[in-house]
Amino acid sequence: MEKKLKVGVLGATGMVGQNYVRLLANHPWFDISYLGASPSSAGKKYTDAVAGRWHMREAIPSKVAGMTVEDAGNVDNAVGKCSLVFSAIEMEKQAVLDLEAAYARKGSPVVSNNSAYRPVDDIPVIIPEINADHLAIIPDQQKKRGFGKGFIVVKPNCSIQSYMIPIYALIKAGYPISKMILTTLQAVSGAGYPGPASIDLIDNTVPFISGEEEKSEVEPRKILGKVVGGKIVPDDSINISAHCNRVPVTDGHTACCSVEFAGKKPEADEIIRIWRSFTAVPQQLKLPSAPVPPIVYSDEPNRPQPQKDRDNGKAMAITVGRLRKCNVFDYRFVGLHHNTVRGAAGGSILAAELLMAKGMVT
Amino acid sequence: MEKKLKVGVLGATGMVGQNYVRLLANHPWFDISYLGASPSSAGKKYTDAVAGRWHMREAIPSKVAGMTVEDAGNVDNAVGKCSLVFSAIEMEKQAVLDLEAAYARKGSPVVSNNSAYRPVDDIPVIIPEINADHLAIIPDQQKKRGFGKGFIVVKPNCSIQSYMIPIYALIKAGYPISKMILTTLQAVSGAGYPGPASIDLIDNTVPFISGEEEKSEVEPRKILGKVVGGKIVPDDSINISAHCNRVPVTDGHTACCSVEFAGKKPEADEIIRIWRSFTAVPQQLKLPSAPVPPIVYSDEPNRPQPQKDRDNGKAMAITVGRLRKCNVFDYRFVGLHHNTVRGAAGGSILAAELLMAKGMVT
Amino acid sequence: MEKKLKVGVLGATGMVGQNYVRLLANHPWFDISYLGASPSSAGKKYTDAVAGRWHMREAIPSKVAGMTVEDAGNVDNAVGKCSLVFSAIEMEKQAVLDLEAAYARKGSPVVSNNSAYRPVDDIPVIIPEINADHLAIIPDQQKKRGFGKGFIVVKPNCSIQSYMIPIYALIKAGYPISKMILTTLQAVSGAGYPGPASIDLIDNTVPFISGEEEKSEVEPRKILGKVVGGKIVPDDSINISAHCNRVPVTDGHTACCSVEFAGKKPEADEIIRIWRSFTAVPQQLKLPSAPVPPIVYSDEPNRPQPQKDRDNGKAMAITVGRLRKCNVFDYRFVGLHHNTVRGAAGGSILAAELLMAKGMVT
Amino acid sequence: MEKKLKVGVLGATGMVGQNYVRLLANHPWFDISYLGASPSSAGKKYTDAVAGRWHMREAIPSKVAGMTVEDAGNVDNAVGKCSLVFSAIEMEKQAVLDLEAAYARKGSPVVSNNSAYRPVDDIPVIIPEINADHLAIIPDQQKKRGFGKGFIVVKPNCSIQSYMIPIYALIKAGYPISKMILTTLQAVSGAGYPGPASIDLIDNTVPFISGEEEKSEVEPRKILGKVVGGKIVPDDSINISAHCNRVPVTDGHTACCSVEFAGKKPEADEIIRIWRSFTAVPQQLKLPSAPVPPIVYSDEPNRPQPQKDRDNGKAMAITVGRLRKCNVFDYRFVGLHHNTVRGAAGGSILAAELLMAKGMVT
Repeated sequence: MEKKLKVGVLGATGMVGQNYVRLLANHPWFDISYLGASPSSAGKKYTDAVAGRWHMREAIPSKVAGMTVEDAGNVDNAVGKCSLVFSAIEMEKQAVLDLEAAYARKGSPVVSNNSAYRPVDDIPVIIPEINADHLAIIPDQQKKRGFGKGFIVVKPNCSIQSYMIPIYALIKAGYPISKMILTTLQAVSGAGYPGPASIDLIDNTVPFISGEEEKSEVEPRKILGKVVGGKIVPDDSINISAHCNRVPVTDGHTACCSVEFAGKKPEADEIIRIWRSFTAVPQQLKLPSAPVPPIVYSDEPNRPQPQKDRDNGKAMAITVGRLRKCNVFDYRFVGLHHNTVRGAAGGSILAAELLMAKGMVT
Repeated sequence: MEKKLKVGVLGATGMVGQNYVRLLANHPWFDISYLGASPSSAGKKYTDAVAGRWHMREAIPSKVAGMTVEDAGNVDNAVGKCSLVFSAIEMEKQAVLDLEAAYARKGSPVVSNNSAYRPVDDIPVIIPEINADHLAIIPDQQKKRGFGKGFIVVKPNCSIQSYMIPIYALIKAGYPISKMILTTLQAVSGAGYPGPASIDLIDNTVPFISGEEEKSEVEPRKILGKVVGGKIVPDDSINISAHCNRVPVTDGHTACCSVEFAGKKPEADEIIRIWRSFTAVPQQLKLPSAPVPPIVYSDEPNRPQPQKDRDNGKAMAITVGRLRKCNVFDYRFVGLHHNTVRGAAGGSILAAELLMAKGMVT
Repeated sequence: MEKKLKVGVLGATGMVGQNYVRLLANHPWFDISYLGASPSSAGKKYTDAVAGRWHMREAIPSKVAGMTVEDAGNVDNAVGKCSLVFSAIEMEKQAVLDLEAAYARKGSPVVSNNSAYRPVDDIPVIIPEINADHLAIIPDQQKKRGFGKGFIVVKPNCSIQSYMIPIYALIKAGYPISKMILTTLQAVSGAGYPGPASIDLIDNTVPFISGEEEKSEVEPRKILGKVVGGKIVPDDSINISAHCNRVPVTDGHTACCSVEFAGKKPEADEIIRIWRSFTAVPQQLKLPSAPVPPIVYSDEPNRPQPQKDRDNGKAMAITVGRLRKCNVFDYRFVGLHHNTVRGAAGGSILAAELLMAKGMVT
Repeated sequence: MEKKLKVGVLGATGMVGQNYVRLLANHPWFDISYLGASPSSAGKKYTDAVAGRWHMREAIPSKVAGMTVEDAGNVDNAVGKCSLVFSAIEMEKQAVLDLEAAYARKGSPVVSNNSAYRPVDDIPVIIPEINADHLAIIPDQQKKRGFGKGFIVVKPNCSIQSYMIPIYALIKAGYPISKMILTTLQAVSGAGYPGPASIDLIDNTVPFISGEEEKSEVEPRKILGKVVGGKIVPDDSINISAHCNRVPVTDGHTACCSVEFAGKKPEADEIIRIWRSFTAVPQQLKLPSAPVPPIVYSDEPNRPQPQKDRDNGKAMAITVGRLRKCNVFDYRFVGLHHNTVRGAAGGSILAAELLMAKGMVT
């Protein structure tokens, strides 16, 4: 890996874009060479474009600070400046569909945080530990959409990683799951900036996040699905019901889960053994952002907790605890992950590393 | 109701005891005439006994401030000073069992917040809107235990009222429930004083409360049970699974619930109609602390919220919202109640009003 | 006071306007008969105009819920519908100056929360306990501005009441103050809705509130000033330095104050005696919103606290504590008041009651 | 520095002791070889001794986890096992005085977090950037107290670093300060574990921390003092008045400061230049924990903030912002530091590095 791959960030001045800039500083494989944003930011130095709205705790990486922001809508301009783009654009749905397709049509792989393409059946929604094999659909996607060597890959909603990786580990070990009822306690950073008003989250929690429950119930089935005939066919054998709450936490989504197995039921110690020994494609390929181990099981009775566990595995690990029998289903447990790293920019970077390791970007 | 009933508060200097003192000030039926506490407080004026640890937002009611605290263990001394005692004592389980029985044996009705007697099959665990009929067991209890005209009644754990009253309304309307999976977001006041350390609940939530899940699963079955042959026989036809979380909220427990009906399934609008028109013994008897209506259903998409709904019905109403289909069970909804009023001292006072209205205390 | 005075609320749909609506429900002297807002709300029922953005904890008062909102800019329309308007409009400064003057010119007394007129030398900035005598300027204001029987009175910034009333009590008692250095810890409700982002106030405080320090230093001098020749001449004998912080508190501004007396210095017990016995025009006139006493001095070592003291005197009292010697100046103390009641709508309503009691509105 | 110095931690199982264990893991100069605690922990493995009360976010360093905890009171036992002890013992004042002296008498340098020795005139209270020269008193201390080669050095209270280093930088540059009035907003971790109850810091702040204001006013004078005739003579030319508040922040103490210069007054840009170019003994000696630069001045209008600035310089830097004219004194500014690192264990480790670099421990 002598020379780093040049990458672009679309929507570079927003909250997610800032996370990309932060996480890609000093990345061993990727080098930011292009920053795309709205016309109002175009032409400015990055440091000026984000003045007064840089929300990361670290300072702007010095290399990026002086780079000139370009108009993300000027696709021709980006070509040649980078070999892959991370999309953190925030626009109307149709505009997202059009702009990301335009980049792909120019031959650029696009790894997107936006939800616009998630329901589309030839666009893989990737959690690298689970469905790296869904990348097999890309030749079909390229052919069907006239993308040439470009393509589109997306990451799922930020609320599902904490339980999807643990339940996938069980499914992979031969214990398919039929039913799952879960309640999330989600951090405010999941809502972008400014997100919820502080007056609504002091001495309070809010039992509703617009659109979140639907995404939490639909996206897992696609991720667990199979590529068949140029389409990703969702796995309808699992039914999920999600209650989503906003809580006064900066970062870290918690999920309290009850699960029922479809067939045979493992013992509790076997489940813990499966989780602790779980490893997947990102770990086997030694991707730079892959957490080792991907699942941390805590024996403490009162964990995982956002404040204490969100940074496990450089904020890319899933922390699980409190496995115990459920009175109604088979088992219950609590999962937690860092929503703006594993659940957003970090998850996309891991997907891009996967693409790189598989030779799909060059 | 010309003359008020003289009542005592055992454990009057603690957090729950202070809530009794606060809520009984200006009560139309009850008058505090006795304050019992530990020997170290005995002999002091109440205002001195709680100096530096009065945690209510209102000032100490002037009438009580100057009263002398007595040794709660000196049962003979209490006799004649009051006609009913509210017990908020915090001691080892056996000591609670002994002391509350001693008061009953001296002829005093005891309404207790302590959990010691809750599992005992001749002691009713009362939520007045649900199981006022369980009071029928008292003559058996008195006979069996040699209590004379004294007896013991307890209130349930503070975490269950927000969903028990709504599901009871459905059961009573002819829609029995077989399964329930729920997750609570519980306020810190539920842990007494000092309760959780602030450093553990700033930018954090904790997915564990010792003993809470067990109580939340067992007590409802007893409350929904029947008095048969001098015993309260729990209703085993309902299975409940509870995940209990502590969140940075002062007062107000939230529960996110998924329920499955045992038989026929009502339409959503019928459920809302049942809740909104629900009324029960406390409302029919016009008990002073009975909320009218007992269940407030909110149409707002993001309610109930602790900060905004805990004080509904003078903090005695249950607020429910977000009724919607569940992907796995039949329906889901969110319930909320004020844990230190409806869930603790206020719930016990309502039970005492019920005893009074039924002529069981004089 | 047989018949209530008809009053209007301009900017009735905003956060401050909602506070007016809430506080004027059941007011013994005033009756809301007019609701003015932006053209986009005009013609709607109030309940529809605030749908999804009603931020008060109580429900919309039933009487107001069904009233039709009018276009506040249509001044002629308001005339005859009410005899005084409370202004909570949020517009560009010049638009505020113009609109409030238009109401006054039509003969309407205007009591405003907006800061636009505060620096103007013939407009009194009223804290009724301090400078009720500044109302003497109104005839001059009316003449100079051609207001007829209309006029404009404003309330000061919401950050200053907690220390201005205590220091005025001392000044009035013969102990003028020359220097004051203070630091505020201000609640988020002071910023309106949505105000600060929750992510900026979880595990954090912010040492800056735009424009707040300047207002905190300038407005007190005008309030302590004198009416001379048709102008309010500020009292330049007091120098104030304010540090303003935003903290994660819903309601209640705290101020930590060090003061130096200009001349003779009272003993600490004399200061406390002055505060506890302080009474002023609103108390003497028995105005309905006047707190009795206006200043509550707490002997507890760790008070005042927002959560526990903001509602003293129906949220209209100032709570003071921790009077002690200062190492640099003469004394220090901590003051606290409820910023959206005493510091905003409640303060304005008290000023309107003063106008009414003095026969200045009819 | 071929071989690391063996160090001990007294009070190793408490909150401060845990911070030492965390910060000394992987220290380039020091190696923990001795863990002292109360008799109840003695004989246990460290991991067992802190089971259920390990409050650091990182896991227990593996090297320390298996070490056996010793009885800190058994001083003879410690001798030979380590060449310096960090004292984080929490006992009655006299017991602290006795135990720390016992270690010194056995020849061990003691660097203490405890306040017991701070007022004693031959014990230096060290902030290494300010008064490294106070170490000159050690030979006198050793002689006077019969300590042999042992001695005692202490760190100051955790609330003062954020302003002491900035004002020292000004004093050193030729601008002595005569008066200072400041208000702190202090994090809950400063109170140890469990510290304040969460119910007291949700939607609240507390304007009082026992003993904190006195320490904040007295200790700075000693630190700025001079070694004269075997005593540290405090600098009485500066008068400080401190208001100390507890706020709902995990880590990071903020101070809002107004200062008056004794003589000539620098321009604002000169002050900023002095702060930004300030460097001192720890930086010159390249001590491993010395932040470079020690003072970070932020130009942002709303900084420093605990959440965003406490980790500057690996949590050892002081962040300063908002320098502006004061209406009463000359200037005001806001300072911030990490209270459990720079203000506690990290500050002591820096002092120990200073001792090492100066050849005072071997």
